[in-house]
Amino acid sequence: MTEMRTLKVALLGCGNVGAQVARILIEDADALAARTGARLELGGIAVRNVNAPRDVDLPQELFTTDADTLVKDADLVIELMGGIEPARTLILSALRNGACVVTGNKALLAQDGPTLYEEADKAGVQLSYEAAVAGAIPILRPIRDSLSGDRITRVLGIVNGTTNFILDQMDSTGAQFADALAEAQRLGYAEADPTADVEGHDAAAKAAILASLSFHTRFALENVHCEGITKVSAADIAAAKDAGFVIKLLAIAEKLTDAEGKEGVSVRVHPTLLPREHPLAAVRGAFNAVFVEAENAGELMFYGQGAGGTPTASAVLGDLVSAARRLVLGGPGRTETTTGHVPALPIDAAVTSYYIGLDVADQPGVLARIAQLFAEHGVSIEIMRQTIHRDAESKTESAELRIVTHRASEAALAATVEAVKGLDVINSVTSVLRVEGV
Amino acid sequence: MTEMRTLKVALLGCGNVGAQVARILIEDADALAARTGARLELGGIAVRNVNAPRDVDLPQELFTTDADTLVKDADLVIELMGGIEPARTLILSALRNGACVVTGNKALLAQDGPTLYEEADKAGVQLSYEAAVAGAIPILRPIRDSLSGDRITRVLGIVNGTTNFILDQMDSTGAQFADALAEAQRLGYAEADPTADVEGHDAAAKAAILASLSFHTRFALENVHCEGITKVSAADIAAAKDAGFVIKLLAIAEKLTDAEGKEGVSVRVHPTLLPREHPLAAVRGAFNAVFVEAENAGELMFYGQGAGGTPTASAVLGDLVSAARRLVLGGPGRTETTTGHVPALPIDAAVTSYYIGLDVADQPGVLARIAQLFAEHGVSIEIMRQTIHRDAESKTESAELRIVTHRASEAALAATVEAVKGLDVINSVTSVLRVEGV
Repeated sequence: MTEMRTLKVALLGCGNVGAQVARILIEDADALAARTGARLELGGIAVRNVNAPRDVDLPQELFTTDADTLVKDADLVIELMGGIEPARTLILSALRNGACVVTGNKALLAQDGPTLYEEADKAGVQLSYEAAVAGAIPILRPIRDSLSGDRITRVLGIVNGTTNFILDQMDSTGAQFADALAEAQRLGYAEADPTADVEGHDAAAKAAILASLSFHTRFALENVHCEGITKVSAADIAAAKDAGFVIKLLAIAEKLTDAEGKEGVSVRVHPTLLPREHPLAAVRGAFNAVFVEAENAGELMFYGQGAGGTPTASAVLGDLVSAARRLVLGGPGRTETTTGHVPALPIDAAVTSYYIGLDVADQPGVLARIAQLFAEHGVSIEIMRQTIHRDAESKTESAELRIVTHRASEAALAATVEAVKGLDVINSVTSVLRVEGV
Repeated sequence: MTEMRTLKVALLGCGNVGAQVARILIEDADALAARTGARLELGGIAVRNVNAPRDVDLPQELFTTDADTLVKDADLVIELMGGIEPARTLILSALRNGACVVTGNKALLAQDGPTLYEEADKAGVQLSYEAAVAGAIPILRPIRDSLSGDRITRVLGIVNGTTNFILDQMDSTGAQFADALAEAQRLGYAEADPTADVEGHDAAAKAAILASLSFHTRFALENVHCEGITKVSAADIAAAKDAGFVIKLLAIAEKLTDAEGKEGVSVRVHPTLLPREHPLAAVRGAFNAVFVEAENAGELMFYGQGAGGTPTASAVLGDLVSAARRLVLGGPGRTETTTGHVPALPIDAAVTSYYIGLDVADQPGVLARIAQLFAEHGVSIEIMRQTIHRDAESKTESAELRIVTHRASEAALAATVEAVKGLDVINSVTSVLRVEGV
């Protein structure tokens, strides 16, 4: 038996994912060697404070604050520090040294991915980042490789566990957003500063990555229209529930063709109504799922744990084993193709269905006037339902009108809503939400 | 711009999948070239009868009966003839010529996979077969690559659309097996001779492939314990429904550790009760889904269309593009690892929960005697429910006893059932079904 080659692994960062990656590298060393054909030797773990407490008991001598030296000496670099710098500089330095890089840094990829991909191409090494989207769920490799002979038309993802947990709480308990957020924070599903999650920024970074791989074109964070869940009210959820829908924060990337036949991709994150029987509607709590539609494959769904140290470490290790196998067997790094050249569309060009809640005067002819206005703006109504609330004591009446439209462009919808607001029979527009899956 | 290389593709077989593969190769030639870096030229389609009617209108000059010559001339060979011979000889010949092979032939892989894998290894070329399991769903590549740094502990798959459709019909309409089968045949979901589907043979071949990739050990068809759905009665389905379960035909591969700590893998196909809230329970009709449990990743599910010409063609094309990219970029073929060396366990060693239906005498002490007997055989009861049926006219009474056990070995369960049959208070054992997901 020939002696097995050793590959040096540098780990940058030792948070909840990094600590589990280090544990698995040590505990499963033999199995990993059997699968890659090389021993993966953890050369060191770069951290800011070598004495900080860790989730896992790891040999103290592995820790160092000198990330630069660690990277210079490595065949494989795992970056799990997060943030833009120094992660960006360290990854570029690793790639230039000919090391393969595995990262879970969605913010960096969404902001400056192209620079990293080009550097990896130039060096002929592999840059992989399965852990950056939907934690443990194998989604990037299936999109990049398994569906490489197909044309993806649409991706709908529940890719943020925090917001999914909050919306799920609101749906099942009737809680308001603030109370559900507090509960999520108490249980550790939301951070003290929840902005990145609840404002949709985290999901937007993942949407940019999913769109780039799905449509063979590099999309950046600025191409993603982003709305969070802070304005979703208990009343919205209740009304959606009543109409057979559930509200989810979706990352959406879909190909659209305009009237002249020009193709573009709409990439966006926003609260979305889904029919309760849609496969994504059943994705509860901190779980993630990505629903993919392709011309030939039809509908596919990938489901699993979207966060957590151990699940996300599984995705990191999968990338690491793949990169190590390639180093052992030889051959160039695998990169995604970028020959799609489809433009990112502004949110105005997005086409979807809408749910509109209106507080209207209860008088004859109101429905007809509103329906007429929608028709004039080219927005076709699928469902219109009026509920009259009678207050027995004050003897006042109010009417609530709920409309679900057929698919229409955002621009047409926005113009319709503006016009509706101008009607004297309208007290207020209580909600405008997008609908998918109908 | 340098001139693009051309790769010659030989297609063997032109059934419903083959015809779609040919169509896509022709229609999407430019997109496929952009993604692979080479033009994929369909050199010919080998069929038995060049004048047979096809699902798709294809250039007549592509058809040939001379598969040998076609294969000799090809860089990439797609085998979609099915059956053992001549598919086996043609694939081996292609691999020896240095061609990459893509196949969807589960029967051949399950029966003689190791011969093919070894030939591919020897020639340093790629043999891929994503289309062989669960049609369009990317499942083999995620198991082989994405989860390569994790330890899979269990795979549960709904991998046969015909039986899933039949069981779904029985569940929703209360139909007997024979009637649901007739309906499936009428709608084209079941073949005139449904044996391979309803007896579980098709699912067993897929179980062997899933087990081999999941546990890094080559399992053959003879390692798979196989029971079909022909004995599942409307009464079984009704009783399962009443208890909150649904009956699915599952392909199962799971790692077990015996009392001495020795590891083995149980690979089996049988009708299985699943709680209605289990993610697999919602997989309806002709859809497929594979549920994977891994030590670090936790629970994952992959869902999509399990059959059909166009969806399955998507999986074939994904493999083809991957193989073509490798030929363009250079580097050795990717094969699965077989360093697991875990033994296949006989069905007696399988450990699961059971549902047992008993027709018993309605007299005091019966429940206690049965419970005592279970305990003596080391099988622990989780739920025991008795229903008394009183026939008003004949004034007779019968008692139906339904038991769900905790996890126990097949051997212990079989011994328990034998002993129960010997009790004088037992009229008959009406059903014994395995339960997963509790």
